This record gives sequence, C-alpha cells and structure tokens, in this order.
Amino acid sequence: MALPVAGCPLCDEAGGRLVFQGAKLRVIHAAETGFPAFYRVVWSDHVAEWSDLAPEDRALCMEAVAVVEQCLRDALSPAKINQAALGNMVPHLHWHVIARFDWDSRFPSPVWAAAQRPADPPREQAVARQLPALEREMIRHLATRSF
Amino acid sequence: MALPVAGCPLCDEAGGRLVFQGAKLRVIHAAETGFPAFYRVVWSDHVAEWSDLAPEDRALCMEAVAVVEQCLRDALSPAKINQAALGNMVPHLHWHVIARFDWDSRFPSPVWAAAQRPADPPREQAVARQLPALEREMIRHLATRSF
Repeated sequence: MALPVAGCPLCDEAGGRLVFQGAKLRVIHAAETGFPAFYRVVWSDHVAEWSDLAPEDRALCMEAVAVVEQCLRDALSPAKINQAALGNMVPHLHWHVIARFDWDSRFPSPVWAAAQRPADPPREQAVARQLPALEREMIRHLATRSF
Repeated sequence: MALPVAGCPLCDEAGGRLVFQGAKLRVIHAAETGFPAFYRVVWSDHVAEWSDLAPEDRALCMEAVAVVEQCLRDALSPAKINQAALGNMVPHLHWHVIARFDWDSRFPSPVWAAAQRPADPPREQAVARQLPALEREMIRHLATRSF
C-alpha cells in the first residue's frame, strides 16, 4: 500500500461529500457548480496514472466507475454520461463520472469548456432532489463486492 | 452486432489515421492541433455509452485503453496521461487517450479548456517524430490478444 503524500488534497481529505468508502476506493459527490450529478471514483492509494495500477486493480476501479455510471443513467436518464481521468492538477487517480443534460451550461461541450448558456438552478435542484435515492442504490450495488 | 448508423462520423469513417483495426475496436491517431500524441480507442459497434457494453466488452475496451496509455508513457514520458469518454457530440463510444506535456497550450487544464500559452510547434514535431516507433510497439501489444 502506498503511503499518503503530504499536500495531496485527495490523500489529505475525501475531496467531496463521501458517498461510499471501500478498502481500495471511494465514491464522492463533487459540488461542481452547474453539474448537480458529478461524482468521482477516487483510488485510495496515491498513484498518478491509471496504468500504475495492477491489471486486477484497474479492472476493479472501472467496475466502480460502471456502477456509478449505471446508477446515474437509471435514475436521471441524462443526455450523456461523461467519464474522464485527467489529474493534471491533482495527480492522484480519480475518475470523473458526470451526468450531462442538454440544458446544462456547457452541453454538448465538455464541462471544462466555456459556458454556452446560463445555468438553470431550478432544473439543477430537481436533479439534486433525486440524489439521495440514487446514492442509496449506488451504495447497495457497491456493497455487493469488495471495492 | 449493432448496425452502423447513417450520418454517424465514427460509423461512416475511421475518424482519424488508423493505427490498429481489431474485430471489436480500432485505435486511431487524432490530428488535434497542439496535441501531437492524441489517440482514440473507438468501439466498432455504434453504442453511445460505455455501460451499454457487456461487462466483458467493457473490460476488453479498457485493456486497449491501457495498452495505448502504457505505450504513450513508455515512449514519451509525458507529464500526464488524460483519458476521457465524452461523446456529447458524437455519441458513438470512443475513449480519448492523450499524452499531456507541461509545455502544451492548455496544461494543466483539460485539452478542452481555454489556451494558457502559445503552441510550441518544434516540441510538437519532436513528439510527432517518435510516433512511428511508438505505434509499432502499440500494434505489437494489441496483436497479442483479440481486440
């Protein structure tokens, strides 16, 4: 097991609202303005690249990503799911899993691109109200195996 | 096997310079200005979401992503690898696998964010010169199993 790295925000803190904590990874909800259903799968150990993981851990990590994605699809019927592992600023492996909607401020561009329209707080709040039930399902699925 | 969808650019064409063609997926080099080592793993069938694939196909797809990532790391020692499956504009499953450099115009932001500095064509060309050898290795690794 790798040691935590002092000063790494994902070693020091959860990095968002903790939804699920496993031995090898956790799932957090990220409070990213304008994207109400933005989750991250964060690997517990401090590794920079996904390919730093052994093949079985890479596969395990992606199974968690798949659970998060499927729960977002089932509950929210988003226009699209976006996944990304970037880590240029925080090189501690984390997968963004984001439900995108055709009314969100960047769609169809990536969430990191310039805004194309104003935010829509009422619709964002309607999504946010669905998160507790969605996360109960997510936890139920994640609990069926050793993450 | 899903039928091709008329008008889908990734059903109609390779979508970039073809590096590897397997039965289930292909690897292309994308000519994205400013990012000389930008590859895509494109699923052959027209599916929108990664979670539309059966678990074994999801795993196969990610093994190809891992091969591409590892070959980029081995040959180029980039500052970071970025992966993403977005597909908001072209909802045909494709994974971006991008070698990022601290001198590229967007680093450390995602490639889709605003430019932070001018492009550096001589350094881009130096990377581009390494691609033929890198791609030979990539093909060699991809050929060891049934993609």
